[in-house]
Amino acid sequence: MPHIPTPPNTAGIGSLLAFRPDTAQPLMMLAQTLLRGDSSLTPGERELIAAYVSHLNHCVFCTLSHAAAAAHLPGNTAELVQQVLDNPDDAPISSKMKSLLAIAQCVQQGGLNVQVDHIHRAKNAGADDTAIHDTVLIAAAFCMYNRYVDGLAAITPTDSDLYDRMGKYLAENGYGRR
Amino acid sequence: MPHIPTPPNTAGIGSLLAFRPDTAQPLMMLAQTLLRGDSSLTPGERELIAAYVSHLNHCVFCTLSHAAAAAHLPGNTAELVQQVLDNPDDAPISSKMKSLLAIAQCVQQGGLNVQVDHIHRAKNAGADDTAIHDTVLIAAAFCMYNRYVDGLAAITPTDSDLYDRMGKYLAENGYGRR
Repeated sequence: MPHIPTPPNTAGIGSLLAFRPDTAQPLMMLAQTLLRGDSSLTPGERELIAAYVSHLNHCVFCTLSHAAAAAHLPGNTAELVQQVLDNPDDAPISSKMKSLLAIAQCVQQGGLNVQVDHIHRAKNAGADDTAIHDTVLIAAAFCMYNRYVDGLAAITPTDSDLYDRMGKYLAENGYGRR
Repeated sequence: MPHIPTPPNTAGIGSLLAFRPDTAQPLMMLAQTLLRGDSSLTPGERELIAAYVSHLNHCVFCTLSHAAAAAHLPGNTAELVQQVLDNPDDAPISSKMKSLLAIAQCVQQGGLNVQVDHIHRAKNAGADDTAIHDTVLIAAAFCMYNRYVDGLAAITPTDSDLYDRMGKYLAENGYGRR
């Protein structure tokens, strides 16, 4: 049961956004800009980072939602997404994505963990400054969204079809409208 | 030196916002809404939570900025803010604020750490649902801002007068304009 009275028939972060529309607006705008706006990373790459960080934070709702969104975007499959969640270094992804996911893992543990060597590895693998910026901010932002969802004990549905439908919706429509 | 090329004569989060104006807009809007918008918590109480979480995350730039902002807002002094950073339970603040800072500390460690007992303690001390919501979201948001600043190695000025001037500015003007 959530720690605050969320509207009926809502779940996950949607229930918290409905409780507090004032803060919902910038939270959704940030997700849309960061995961769908202009970037040198594709939406599929960015959703992979979001799903991976959510998994590291043990946030089931966000992991399942963003894993499903990632799987519905070009460049990914559900199997690939699962391999990334299990261990990015063993997954069949580019060395650039492996180096960016390593940065995301550092950020998840704390910003001061990111060292110059992590940045050099990513740049040598072809990541530009925007990719590095966006990786750090996506990882940081999901440290917020995950804590928001679990810190208020938002309802986490158990129906896997629901996450697949939500992922498809997010892949096609983004975070601009609810 | 920051991990990305930030504009000259910028520092802290301002340098990152200047690098990427697209994401700057929702990040500033979130800070303004969350720390200055309508709430059952005063701006001074909300800045105390922001400074405390930043301190727990070892983010020197955010701790000094928001401690200074808190100290310039009604209800606080610089000495009180320092006492809260040192140990909220020993600080001369209300039992409501102590219980909310305990929730913020849980969120900083991970959202799943917030237990029903923490919520009951806060409600018994007079916190309403909005105060609980805002405490969790402020703590979560500063887990993002702190990681953004340190994950990209933004410059942290060492001049304490600068933080005092910035805190005064933020207390008087908020986060709406730069």
